[in-house]
Amino acid sequence: MASLAKFDGLELPASADFHVHLRTGTMAETVVPCIRKGGVNTVYVMPNLVPPLTSASDALAYKDRLQRLDPSIHYIMTLYLHEKITPAVIKGAKAQGIVGVKSYPAGVTTNSASGVLSYEPFYPVFSTMEQCGMVLNLHGECPSGEDITILNAESSFLPTLKSLHAKFPKLKIVLEHCTTREAIEAVKECGPNVAGTITAHHLFLTIDDWADDPFCYCKPVAKLPRDREALLKAAVSGSSKFFLGSDSAPHDLKAKKGGRGKTAAGVFTQPYVTQLVLNALEIAIERKVISEEEVTEEILKNFLGGHGRKFYGINDGSNEKIVLRKGSEVVQESFKGDGVEVIPFRRGESTWSIEWK
Amino acid sequence: MASLAKFDGLELPASADFHVHLRTGTMAETVVPCIRKGGVNTVYVMPNLVPPLTSASDALAYKDRLQRLDPSIHYIMTLYLHEKITPAVIKGAKAQGIVGVKSYPAGVTTNSASGVLSYEPFYPVFSTMEQCGMVLNLHGECPSGEDITILNAESSFLPTLKSLHAKFPKLKIVLEHCTTREAIEAVKECGPNVAGTITAHHLFLTIDDWADDPFCYCKPVAKLPRDREALLKAAVSGSSKFFLGSDSAPHDLKAKKGGRGKTAAGVFTQPYVTQLVLNALEIAIERKVISEEEVTEEILKNFLGGHGRKFYGINDGSNEKIVLRKGSEVVQESFKGDGVEVIPFRRGESTWSIEWK
Repeated sequence: MASLAKFDGLELPASADFHVHLRTGTMAETVVPCIRKGGVNTVYVMPNLVPPLTSASDALAYKDRLQRLDPSIHYIMTLYLHEKITPAVIKGAKAQGIVGVKSYPAGVTTNSASGVLSYEPFYPVFSTMEQCGMVLNLHGECPSGEDITILNAESSFLPTLKSLHAKFPKLKIVLEHCTTREAIEAVKECGPNVAGTITAHHLFLTIDDWADDPFCYCKPVAKLPRDREALLKAAVSGSSKFFLGSDSAPHDLKAKKGGRGKTAAGVFTQPYVTQLVLNALEIAIERKVISEEEVTEEILKNFLGGHGRKFYGINDGSNEKIVLRKGSEVVQESFKGDGVEVIPFRRGESTWSIEWK
Repeated sequence: MASLAKFDGLELPASADFHVHLRTGTMAETVVPCIRKGGVNTVYVMPNLVPPLTSASDALAYKDRLQRLDPSIHYIMTLYLHEKITPAVIKGAKAQGIVGVKSYPAGVTTNSASGVLSYEPFYPVFSTMEQCGMVLNLHGECPSGEDITILNAESSFLPTLKSLHAKFPKLKIVLEHCTTREAIEAVKECGPNVAGTITAHHLFLTIDDWADDPFCYCKPVAKLPRDREALLKAAVSGSSKFFLGSDSAPHDLKAKKGGRGKTAAGVFTQPYVTQLVLNALEIAIERKVISEEEVTEEILKNFLGGHGRKFYGINDGSNEKIVLRKGSEVVQESFKGDGVEVIPFRRGESTWSIEWK
C-alpha cells in the first residue's frame, strides 16, 4: 500500500483524542504511557469508573492520578450524568475546569449500570450546561428491547439527539463514536453546536470482523459496509463537525477471551491511534471508498485534532509537533502491566510510526 | 414458567435431529453419547470432516465408527458436495444407502474451505440426484463481500435456492438452519420438495445474545427479533416443510474462548435438543409471540421428528418412545472428554428431562 506515501515525514500538531478510557490502578499504569505512543498529547477522559465520576472533586482527583502517570498529557475531564448531577454541581464543576458531562443510557456498555433511563429529569442540568458553556457527550444508543437490537440501537437514539438539540439549541453536544450512516446524517442536519466523534477502529470494521473476534467487539458495534463508508467519508469531508475520539477501551485479556463470562466490550487503540487512522484511510483508498486526493494535510490535521480542539475551545497542546513515518512499525502483540494484559487492535499488522519533535 | 405444563408426562416418538455435527476422535466420543440424552435416536450426520466426506465408502466408514460409539442410534449419512462428486458417485452412493449431499459455500463456516464456489458445474450431479431420489442439503449463505455481510448472507442466497428448485423441481432440497423471515417465506413459496430445518438455539437467540457470548455464536448467526419470531411461528405452524435440525456443533472450549485466535462458530445443543425446543416454545408463549394453544402434541411430534422422517422417507426409530418431564433438570456446565471440553447452550439453566420408555 503506497497510497499515503506522500505523508511520510509530514509534521503535524500532536493529535488530540476526544474520547478515551484510561481506567484506574494497574490498567491506568499500563495504558496512560501509551497515549504519546499514539501521537496524542490531549485526551478527553471518560468518567465511567466504578463508582462513576459524578463530582468535580472526584474528577480532579482522578486527573491528578493520571498526571502522576504522565504529566506531559493534557487531560480534559467530563462528569458522568447521574442523579447526583444538579445545576449547582454543574456551575461548581465549570468553575473548577470540568469541560463536559457524559451521558450513558443505562446498561448499554462497560460500567453503564448507573446510566440514564430518561433525559427529561436532566433538562434543568442541560439548561445550566447550555448557559455556562459545558459540553454534553452522548453515548447514543437505546437499550435493546422488543424492537431494538445492538444493530439499530444508535439509529433509534437519533430522535433523542435531535430533540435535545431542539430544546437546547446553544448546548454543545457531541454524539460519541458514530457508527452508522444515519448518525453521520443526523449530526450534519443539526446546527454547528452538534458534532460527532469517530473512532479509528470503526473506520476499519464491519459486523463480520467482530462476530468471531472479541478484540474487535465494542459498543456501539461496527455495522455494515455502507456505514463504514459513511464514517470514512465524514472523516475526510473537512466538516468541522467530525473529529477523532478513539473510544480506546482497554480490557484485560481474561475479560475478552478467558473464563466463561461475557466478552467485555471495547477495542484498544490508544498506542497507535494516529497511525491507525492513516492505515484506515489507506485501506479505504485501495478499496476506492475515498480517493487519495481527498486526504490532504489539512484534512488530516483537522480530523486528528484541529476540529476537536476548536469545538471544545482548547488550545493546549497544538504547538507540540509529531512527524509521521510510513509503514515502519508493527503493532505489538500485547501491552502488559502488573497483572493485566491488553491486546491492541490489529496486533501484528504493520503500521505507521510517530516521532515527537 | 408453567406454560407447557400440559406436556409433563407426555409420551412422544423419539425425536429425529436432521442436522448434527458429530466430529471424530475424542470429540465424537464425547458428543455421540449425548444424542440419546437429548431424546433423539435418529440423526442426519454432517460430512464436514477434515478431509470432507466425498465418497460413500468414506461416509460408511465414518458411520461405522459412530455406530461403535452408540449402536442404538440411526445414523443417516450425507456427502460433502465437492468436485469429486460426479453423477457416477451419486448413483453408487444411493445404492449404498447414502441419503443426501450437503453443499457448503466456500468459506462460510467450520470446515467449509473445500466448499462450493458456483453451483452450475454441479447441475449434472443435481440432475442425477433428482432422478435417483437423493436430497440436497444447502448451507444457505453467500460468502461475505462488498455488499454481503453475515447479516444478509442468508437472504442473499435465497434466489439461488429458488433457481435450483426451478431447474430441478423434483429434487428434494432442505434449506438448512433457517435464520430469517425471508428464508421461511422462501421455503414456503417453493413446492413440497423444498423444506427447511430449524435449530433449537435459533428459537432463542438474536444478535444481542451472541455479540458478547461465544457459546451463542454460530453460522448462520442469529438475526433480529422479527426473524426469531418467524422461526417460532414456522415451528408451530404444522407445515410439513419445517422440522428440527439442531446444527449442534461442538467445539472445544479453547476454540471458543481460549488463546487469541478467532472464535469457532457453532452452538452445542445435542444433549438437550428436545428439551430446548420445549423451553424455547415456553419463552415464546411468555413473550406472547405464540400462544399455548398453538403448541399441541401433534405439532410437537411432527416438528421433533414426524415431518423430517416423512420428508426423508425414513421410518427407522419412530417406534421408540420418550416421555417428557417438565423442569426437572439443569443444563450441565460442560461435557468433558479426553482432552476436550464442550460448553452446552444454556449451561446452568433449568430445562425439561427426557425418559426413555
